[in-house]
Amino acid sequence: MSLAQDRRAEQDAREEKVLGIIETARGKKQKFRDARITMAHGAGGKATASLIEGLLLPAFANAALDELGDAGYVPTVAGTLALSTDSYVVRPLTFPGGCIGELAINGTANDLACAGARPLALTLGMILEEGLESTVLREQVAAMAAAAQAAGVTIVAGDTKVVERGSADGMYLNTAGVGLRDARAMLSPAALRPGDQLLLSGPIGAHGMAIMLARGEFELEAEIRSDTRCLWPTVDALLGAAGPHLRCLRDATRGGVASVLNELARASGVAMIVREAAVPVDPDVAGAAELLGLDPMQIANEGVLVAAVAPEGAEAALEAMKNVAGGERAVLIGEVKTDPTGMVLVETGFGGRRVCDQLVGDPLPRIC
Amino acid sequence: MSLAQDRRAEQDAREEKVLGIIETARGKKQKFRDARITMAHGAGGKATASLIEGLLLPAFANAALDELGDAGYVPTVAGTLALSTDSYVVRPLTFPGGCIGELAINGTANDLACAGARPLALTLGMILEEGLESTVLREQVAAMAAAAQAAGVTIVAGDTKVVERGSADGMYLNTAGVGLRDARAMLSPAALRPGDQLLLSGPIGAHGMAIMLARGEFELEAEIRSDTRCLWPTVDALLGAAGPHLRCLRDATRGGVASVLNELARASGVAMIVREAAVPVDPDVAGAAELLGLDPMQIANEGVLVAAVAPEGAEAALEAMKNVAGGERAVLIGEVKTDPTGMVLVETGFGGRRVCDQLVGDPLPRIC
Repeated sequence: MSLAQDRRAEQDAREEKVLGIIETARGKKQKFRDARITMAHGAGGKATASLIEGLLLPAFANAALDELGDAGYVPTVAGTLALSTDSYVVRPLTFPGGCIGELAINGTANDLACAGARPLALTLGMILEEGLESTVLREQVAAMAAAAQAAGVTIVAGDTKVVERGSADGMYLNTAGVGLRDARAMLSPAALRPGDQLLLSGPIGAHGMAIMLARGEFELEAEIRSDTRCLWPTVDALLGAAGPHLRCLRDATRGGVASVLNELARASGVAMIVREAAVPVDPDVAGAAELLGLDPMQIANEGVLVAAVAPEGAEAALEAMKNVAGGERAVLIGEVKTDPTGMVLVETGFGGRRVCDQLVGDPLPRIC
Repeated sequence: MSLAQDRRAEQDAREEKVLGIIETARGKKQKFRDARITMAHGAGGKATASLIEGLLLPAFANAALDELGDAGYVPTVAGTLALSTDSYVVRPLTFPGGCIGELAINGTANDLACAGARPLALTLGMILEEGLESTVLREQVAAMAAAAQAAGVTIVAGDTKVVERGSADGMYLNTAGVGLRDARAMLSPAALRPGDQLLLSGPIGAHGMAIMLARGEFELEAEIRSDTRCLWPTVDALLGAAGPHLRCLRDATRGGVASVLNELARASGVAMIVREAAVPVDPDVAGAAELLGLDPMQIANEGVLVAAVAPEGAEAALEAMKNVAGGERAVLIGEVKTDPTGMVLVETGFGGRRVCDQLVGDPLPRIC
């Protein structure tokens, strides 16, 4: 063996050894062990891989995600798809009755449900703040996984970005959902006709007030829990009991029931009369709202829907809602009228009536 | 007429008049005239409606959005859906060759394309910073609309949140996309086999370097434009020319070509050899990267894909890529090997070879 050959062999052996060590390391499934999120977790390299393989894949386990392609697949039958998206920027991240992760799943699933579509799959975009404690992220990921399982949806694609400390308040989430339009659903915000009945799936104002109190900005001691829940079971029951008679369904989130009713009144060119006394508001919520000068009709909910139903289907629809767990307090709150077009009037307890308008300013920012 | 009746009549007349004024205002399409974004634009009330009806609907005009439901609809034929999502947090919002809005459309469309799916529809989630100038928002909305039209996708659902001044650097965007899997596509990151050829659709490193220079953190004068573009035409051509021979396609975004190759090598349990001299890098990009101590293989692209192709389809695939506008410099850069499993080796110009690893740290944060 010449000296040159000798050196080459030595070099090859060294290279083999280095490659061997790297290869062994590579073969292992990446683990997520960092105590805090760093910019590297969003950079698309090894730290990102450890986050995905060590935390997200195990939590959201499904075949589509495991493929780790740029997109997830959803085998579907022929039909019309419904798509929806929401970003979640709620503060604080956790509050009585729920958390941002749980909202991110149910909020988007509920938009699909209210569009008459069975939620099939979600995508998840996370914007994390540098320095976020991993325990906080783990909690939210667990909450998302649990909510997705309960709602019967899979998370088939995701993305994680990290922004510098001081931005994003810990985390912002976005989910987009795809659902298959239920053949029984013939819903449109423009479908309301005079005489239609207005139903509400439960008491209002709990979510918004729970968030306000959780922020500790007010010296209020009330025990109010968010009403956040998946509304597909309610929608499914409604479609079964009164499918062709349903005009439109809407979950009353930002802007509350007032925003939903006003939007539908405008879209359909009709008026509405709502009996204030019929609208269920829990005493703690009513008290807190009064102290803060807020109208419960304008406070956000995360588990309440408004259903506009043709008169002949109203009774069956109400019964169906009541029979769903959590829907026991579903109620008829009002009726669609002809005039004044595009407006919602509330009959007060004293026989008077007032305009129930959409909110203009922003009494409750960042509630979802 | 009694005094009481008189008062009632007077009250009724006053009420009628008030209602009349509100009604007239309500009948009008809302206009977006604010100079800056306020918290109210994200609160779900009138300001949100003015933003949606005055700016977003006209820009993204399509039937699904005009319905203004909680979800948009996509009529589809039977097939497998591909879903993808990405959040966009790039700084600055505008840079040579592109902007965050254009990235948000093409980035997600490209993920679908590389999954072998024709992009059909997108959802758009915007997180806006309080105080953002409306002209900036208008610019980005216009860029999104133009990119969506060029890519042949519609934006069928959206959501806007506003966070307090000091968060979100102007705006963060999220898009999620749904595509229909092309019947010609049989792609999987685990499908690579020894002997497969590795193709690149164009020169690398331009996007990441363009962003770095646009930030002005370095005293470099180079004129580098982002390579951002929609890759569906390239994918469509590849599927037509070499459909069954394509193993996997990936757009080389965060982490660059190095990340893509490493992920595929790991997923397929193969090795790769890349000839460094064959990888096209524009002189300005190469120079800037060298000055900053960066490896162009690890720099993000927004309009470059890597294709792994069975040997019998490689030539046709390369020809097809070259025939797409912007693909003239498509090239064969390497080959899939057996050992060392899961690793990517680069043959340097001097006949040596080095391990081409994924990036570990974060040399280029916030580039998309």
